[in-house]
Amino acid sequence: MKKTRICIIGGGSRLWAIQFMKDLAYNTTTHGSLVLYDIDKAAARNNVAVARQVFSVNKSEGRFQVEACDEIGEALSGCDLVVISIEPGKTECRYGDLVLPEEYGILQSVGDTTGPGGIMRARRALPIFFDFARQIEKYCPDAWVINYTNPMTLCTAALYHAFPGIKALGCCHEVFHTQNFLADGVSRWFSVPRPDRRDIKIDITGVNHFTFLTKATWQGNDLMPHLLELVSNPAIFTNRTAQALQRLKDEKWFDCDQIIGLSFFRDFGALGAAGDRHLAEFVPWFLTSDEDLHHYGVIRTPYDWRLRSAKEKREKVFKDDELVAELSDEEGVDIMRSLMGERTMVTNINFPNEGQINYLPVGRIVESNGVISQDSIRPLVSSAPPLAVQNLVRQVSDVQQMTLDAVVSGDDGLLFSAFLCDPLVNISRDKARELFDRMLKASALQY
Amino acid sequence: MKKTRICIIGGGSRLWAIQFMKDLAYNTTTHGSLVLYDIDKAAARNNVAVARQVFSVNKSEGRFQVEACDEIGEALSGCDLVVISIEPGKTECRYGDLVLPEEYGILQSVGDTTGPGGIMRARRALPIFFDFARQIEKYCPDAWVINYTNPMTLCTAALYHAFPGIKALGCCHEVFHTQNFLADGVSRWFSVPRPDRRDIKIDITGVNHFTFLTKATWQGNDLMPHLLELVSNPAIFTNRTAQALQRLKDEKWFDCDQIIGLSFFRDFGALGAAGDRHLAEFVPWFLTSDEDLHHYGVIRTPYDWRLRSAKEKREKVFKDDELVAELSDEEGVDIMRSLMGERTMVTNINFPNEGQINYLPVGRIVESNGVISQDSIRPLVSSAPPLAVQNLVRQVSDVQQMTLDAVVSGDDGLLFSAFLCDPLVNISRDKARELFDRMLKASALQY
Amino acid sequence: MKKTRICIIGGGSRLWAIQFMKDLAYNTTTHGSLVLYDIDKAAARNNVAVARQVFSVNKSEGRFQVEACDEIGEALSGCDLVVISIEPGKTECRYGDLVLPEEYGILQSVGDTTGPGGIMRARRALPIFFDFARQIEKYCPDAWVINYTNPMTLCTAALYHAFPGIKALGCCHEVFHTQNFLADGVSRWFSVPRPDRRDIKIDITGVNHFTFLTKATWQGNDLMPHLLELVSNPAIFTNRTAQALQRLKDEKWFDCDQIIGLSFFRDFGALGAAGDRHLAEFVPWFLTSDEDLHHYGVIRTPYDWRLRSAKEKREKVFKDDELVAELSDEEGVDIMRSLMGERTMVTNINFPNEGQINYLPVGRIVESNGVISQDSIRPLVSSAPPLAVQNLVRQVSDVQQMTLDAVVSGDDGLLFSAFLCDPLVNISRDKARELFDRMLKASALQY
Amino acid sequence: MKKTRICIIGGGSRLWAIQFMKDLAYNTTTHGSLVLYDIDKAAARNNVAVARQVFSVNKSEGRFQVEACDEIGEALSGCDLVVISIEPGKTECRYGDLVLPEEYGILQSVGDTTGPGGIMRARRALPIFFDFARQIEKYCPDAWVINYTNPMTLCTAALYHAFPGIKALGCCHEVFHTQNFLADGVSRWFSVPRPDRRDIKIDITGVNHFTFLTKATWQGNDLMPHLLELVSNPAIFTNRTAQALQRLKDEKWFDCDQIIGLSFFRDFGALGAAGDRHLAEFVPWFLTSDEDLHHYGVIRTPYDWRLRSAKEKREKVFKDDELVAELSDEEGVDIMRSLMGERTMVTNINFPNEGQINYLPVGRIVESNGVISQDSIRPLVSSAPPLAVQNLVRQVSDVQQMTLDAVVSGDDGLLFSAFLCDPLVNISRDKARELFDRMLKASALQY
Repeated sequence: MKKTRICIIGGGSRLWAIQFMKDLAYNTTTHGSLVLYDIDKAAARNNVAVARQVFSVNKSEGRFQVEACDEIGEALSGCDLVVISIEPGKTECRYGDLVLPEEYGILQSVGDTTGPGGIMRARRALPIFFDFARQIEKYCPDAWVINYTNPMTLCTAALYHAFPGIKALGCCHEVFHTQNFLADGVSRWFSVPRPDRRDIKIDITGVNHFTFLTKATWQGNDLMPHLLELVSNPAIFTNRTAQALQRLKDEKWFDCDQIIGLSFFRDFGALGAAGDRHLAEFVPWFLTSDEDLHHYGVIRTPYDWRLRSAKEKREKVFKDDELVAELSDEEGVDIMRSLMGERTMVTNINFPNEGQINYLPVGRIVESNGVISQDSIRPLVSSAPPLAVQNLVRQVSDVQQMTLDAVVSGDDGLLFSAFLCDPLVNISRDKARELFDRMLKASALQY
Repeated sequence: MKKTRICIIGGGSRLWAIQFMKDLAYNTTTHGSLVLYDIDKAAARNNVAVARQVFSVNKSEGRFQVEACDEIGEALSGCDLVVISIEPGKTECRYGDLVLPEEYGILQSVGDTTGPGGIMRARRALPIFFDFARQIEKYCPDAWVINYTNPMTLCTAALYHAFPGIKALGCCHEVFHTQNFLADGVSRWFSVPRPDRRDIKIDITGVNHFTFLTKATWQGNDLMPHLLELVSNPAIFTNRTAQALQRLKDEKWFDCDQIIGLSFFRDFGALGAAGDRHLAEFVPWFLTSDEDLHHYGVIRTPYDWRLRSAKEKREKVFKDDELVAELSDEEGVDIMRSLMGERTMVTNINFPNEGQINYLPVGRIVESNGVISQDSIRPLVSSAPPLAVQNLVRQVSDVQQMTLDAVVSGDDGLLFSAFLCDPLVNISRDKARELFDRMLKASALQY
Repeated sequence: MKKTRICIIGGGSRLWAIQFMKDLAYNTTTHGSLVLYDIDKAAARNNVAVARQVFSVNKSEGRFQVEACDEIGEALSGCDLVVISIEPGKTECRYGDLVLPEEYGILQSVGDTTGPGGIMRARRALPIFFDFARQIEKYCPDAWVINYTNPMTLCTAALYHAFPGIKALGCCHEVFHTQNFLADGVSRWFSVPRPDRRDIKIDITGVNHFTFLTKATWQGNDLMPHLLELVSNPAIFTNRTAQALQRLKDEKWFDCDQIIGLSFFRDFGALGAAGDRHLAEFVPWFLTSDEDLHHYGVIRTPYDWRLRSAKEKREKVFKDDELVAELSDEEGVDIMRSLMGERTMVTNINFPNEGQINYLPVGRIVESNGVISQDSIRPLVSSAPPLAVQNLVRQVSDVQQMTLDAVVSGDDGLLFSAFLCDPLVNISRDKARELFDRMLKASALQY
Repeated sequence: MKKTRICIIGGGSRLWAIQFMKDLAYNTTTHGSLVLYDIDKAAARNNVAVARQVFSVNKSEGRFQVEACDEIGEALSGCDLVVISIEPGKTECRYGDLVLPEEYGILQSVGDTTGPGGIMRARRALPIFFDFARQIEKYCPDAWVINYTNPMTLCTAALYHAFPGIKALGCCHEVFHTQNFLADGVSRWFSVPRPDRRDIKIDITGVNHFTFLTKATWQGNDLMPHLLELVSNPAIFTNRTAQALQRLKDEKWFDCDQIIGLSFFRDFGALGAAGDRHLAEFVPWFLTSDEDLHHYGVIRTPYDWRLRSAKEKREKVFKDDELVAELSDEEGVDIMRSLMGERTMVTNINFPNEGQINYLPVGRIVESNGVISQDSIRPLVSSAPPLAVQNLVRQVSDVQQMTLDAVVSGDDGLLFSAFLCDPLVNISRDKARELFDRMLKASALQY
């Protein structure tokens, strides 16, 4: 593979950025230079040291020149690939996103993609992404851009809005979890060793975090009848409150069992193909109370932990053995290798709709499979899901479009339209307005 | 006007059927024969006497031959016009429609169009309408058919489903209330005597009972700025609980002040153009509690009154002065006169989408303006409302399509898909399923 | 009717402008002021005298103040209605439009709407219309604009392109000819006196001059079976060369018998609803030779006559009896009366597609019925014609869109794309290019 | 790879069938059984012997059991893969397809896909394909079906029409020629050895034989600027009559230089991506005369040669060295290997539109790229070509749809609609009708 110049926007991050470095170290064909940019300049500089540690631990010294860069223009100049993974606004902003809605009975398990929290986060994030897009247009218009930031759909839409010629995709691992869930099933259903998730071939459709699986095969075996059998047995939907409470105790916020995904399958004929904690937020039937949510084994990530965790991450000193690279479940580096011409891959992408999701308007950012090859990403047409799923997804996509329009035009009245149309907002109109106003204020304060 | 043979299906009705007779009596150009058909044969026969009383009171003896007919085929044979206004199932079915959802916190102000009640009512009504359509195809395929029955959209859709060549429209007076509301406004805004509602020219879009007004003029004066001024003043949204309580006491279930319609205007930029009690049922923000609903001056029609009222209507003996005909706010007879070639009129129609609502799929039954002239109904293209309104209407139209598909295929699993996607169903999935199963059972029992 | 200020752009015209004045004189409710603007300032001034003669002859002195105005801004200021009927470029430009294609075997009967001549005429006309639209936006943005200029579709599209908020429609009498043809038929088919064309109710679809009739009734009688019977008898398609030759001799260029319209009906199931001389130009089967064309009784208007006629019109002195007003077959003044609130009318309009033609993209200028009332024009949804007709119309509409795009971007390469795709261009690609280049040059020379 | 049971319908063919056997022999992972079915039973039996010769020559004895089968049901039972490559009607039918239109000045270079010849061939072929589909539904509904028969689009559409659940694709090598043309270019442009055509990555859009290339890269190098430079130099369009005449003499009917493809690129901005002899037939600008066609180096395949060649093929005895297998330019076996799970490939497919060609209606058979993997074919969304190309392709696709509708309904009047709308039919309507009637008769006689 030819030399690649990569810029990580949000290069001071202690999670994605470092995972990405490990993946670079693991994939030995990669080489070139890596530029870390972050509004927290010290964090970016700290990560230069971590990067060196990563390459050293993995005996990959010399493959990448690593530097931090204070100016975004300089950071982007000459780049082949830009990776964006940022936190839009301080962690304290999540207070308004998560805690205020709770006061009104609106529970959110994640609150960064959809719902009141997702909408406010979008309002903070989109202007930043408009600016990123303009900088990319100016300094590296031909670079490929991988966005990891939530709200994924809207941040990616913002890039295309501000620079329509951008070569950007949104990249998310939620679908992989569903493949892993199916890989576990394959092992049981066929009495074979658990296959790699990449061997589970799936057809997906929707928008990020609200993605649906309409087909799945393993070595040509149709897995849908097995799913059907699974949901036909009420046992799968047995009360999982005990697990949920254990998870709360263990602070295992991200663990779940695809039960909400299966509930979609039983009721609508398409499997929810993201983590349950994400799926739950797009419809009003799961977050009706913590008790109801726990029934599915799902718990909500609390604001307090987010604060604490952010602090811990910032202060973390990595031990060598934490930096040993192995095959990861993130695909950023694999996508980079494909775009550089090393190979062709089929995976899920968040990309402007050109027809791949034929029940949504052209131009919306949607999630489908895509083929990634040298300097090319082309979406695969998704099989159409049942009308109920189309309806739910369209509702979400429309709210996203309203949110984008509102931020573009700076019209908080229009943003409130979006807010009211969000499926989690089932309180009275006046309380919704009050909450909206308080969230706006909270979001602005911390920003 | 030439002689017309009219059949009223539901001809035993004490409300629509008699109003229709009065309108026939009032419009002196009409003449011909009137056939009353009802599964309650005695009621149809009783109404023959009432019809004679109507024509006699209004000095229109001889214009119409009136008869009751026990066989639907005989009733339909040779008809030019068929009017359908029936109650699908006994009044006792409304118990399941209205009272069971209450147990789960789902309040409905009407419950015959949308929401859990509307869906169950559709399940009872659609097979009946499939049969009507087949009888019409057999006995009077060229007749025009006016449907007044709720759920209007789905009953009309059922007619087209079973006999695609049918010449049917759904006819509803809710939009007239909005014109009346605006006529009152014109009187104040322009210091003129209140104009007739027909002089308020409007552009509307949506589905029946969830219709939106995007333009309104009176004598070429744009009324939208006046509406904008109205909603910019918080006074209009002052708490109307006192009026609501008075209405409860007075059993004025149908009274309302268009405040929910205006709330849509303030939040989404298009005026809700149906009675508030209907509008409230299509979104989750108004029926959050009776207290919240009363704030808008709106009350819910109770099941008990429906039972009592049905009984009273059945037993009612009309006094002559109750049967004096005058210009009414129902348009059935005007539409008939237009279809018979007497004149051309522009009014709101519920009709298959051929492009008039360009954000909904072709074929759905939608509400827009239409031009009615001799043997012809053609829809007028509606101006596109804001995306938020498109989104809300589409959600409702999709649920209607799912309901139709479910009844056509006899698939109650698919019907539950529709049920879950209904905007009023914001309870936990399992409770929703339990309610659905109970409602199914209740609906079947009484049917 | 309230006072109206009207501006005629092309007010020096000896045909449309004077007909319009006669119609104003005939309709006694109209009054106000009339401003004549023309790049030929002397012609506009001359027409002021003719206007006075018209109003005097018709005993309508005092109803309209008439003036010529040299500056377009001054002419437009304060107008309620703008009528545009101009010749884009000198009559000599028609040489390139008509005679050059003949050298290559491409015959055109009119050459101002479609085909090589129509495309070149559009290239001359569109920049002028962009400017008109900008002036209207500046001086009378709320005025209604009626365009009579060909190419009708593209000139109207140009107005909307340059000023999207314009309230413009294209107005054309070709459909009236088809109504007159059907009125003649009604007289024969029903043995009644010939009805007025306005009593023939029709449903139409397409683009201007390539419009198709899918339904026609008279007093509720379906006329389509009569048309079907007509075309089932080969006699209707008998050779009409003798009539054609007589028409040539009599210089009756505009006479025709709807035989090409009927030929569309026999082959495609929808009646061509414009004059045969227009219809013939949109497909390659009729203008294959003069002999073939004469078979249908149609002749081509020669360039020489156009030159001569233009000169005669310029020099014409009107006798009083030529200016006597009577009910005309032009609707400009009727449309004006409707827009001013005097009445509501249903007629054919050329208007941006909002869904009325559901097989063409939204935004294209299309011809359908519309309802015209006070300050409002709303399109009626056209019934869908057979796929073959959709295909032919779409091809034409796409060529129009390409032509607009080419003129907007000043890209003659793109204009050649449009030229090649025109259904009359069936010569070899290289000859087509040569012709295109010569026509471009000829068009520019004379402009 | 697991054992595969393959049926070749048209198994008596001396061209496709034998090439397919050679490809089976070449690809050593394939094994199983091969059933030859043909209405010419003797030909199928003869090919069993050839098959054995092929496997023997290539030292692949034992990998495939080969048999001929007289009954289609027996032939299809248990199949995993069905390959269809037939001649619909006797070779003598081509007389009507090719020679009759010539009498009317309509030249066709191939005459089996589009134009009058293609339409008549479709009329013969489609009923046969309806039957194939019904047999497949009955005997091997889960088999994958590869169709090679022309008219490709319509034969594939016929399969889906008669059995909507069929898993069929149309497979065509024309796009490969364009890749080969570009591979030659790469060698010159980059001074490298000529790459394999599979290394030229392309984006295509259209319908079979009228496919357009919108993007091409080699090792990530954009080839479009090189194409642009090529067509900017008039030299590429120099008169190639001398080559054409030599080709005539040498009977090199299939040779061409992509000059017509390039002519599309120069005029419309997308490269024609099929052989010039096919491309020429979809628009009226190239087959205006043999002289004009020869200018591009293209010649027409004469009827006489087709007759002679058919006879020679039937009688041919294969020498061993003619049956030596090597990497071929046909992909049938590669597709089979992918469907059986051996690997994933991206190639051009003819498949029902689900959104991959967003300017054509859903359901039409279209050509785009697709991803073929184990038991799965999913189309890739094509980049949108310029509007002119969309317009030309849509015209062709509509004519195909009309042809299908006409054959389904047995309505030759509708078939004449399609015939008239075909871009090659530029003669007078009456001559077109006469030709159509004669062709119908000729087609029926020989069938």
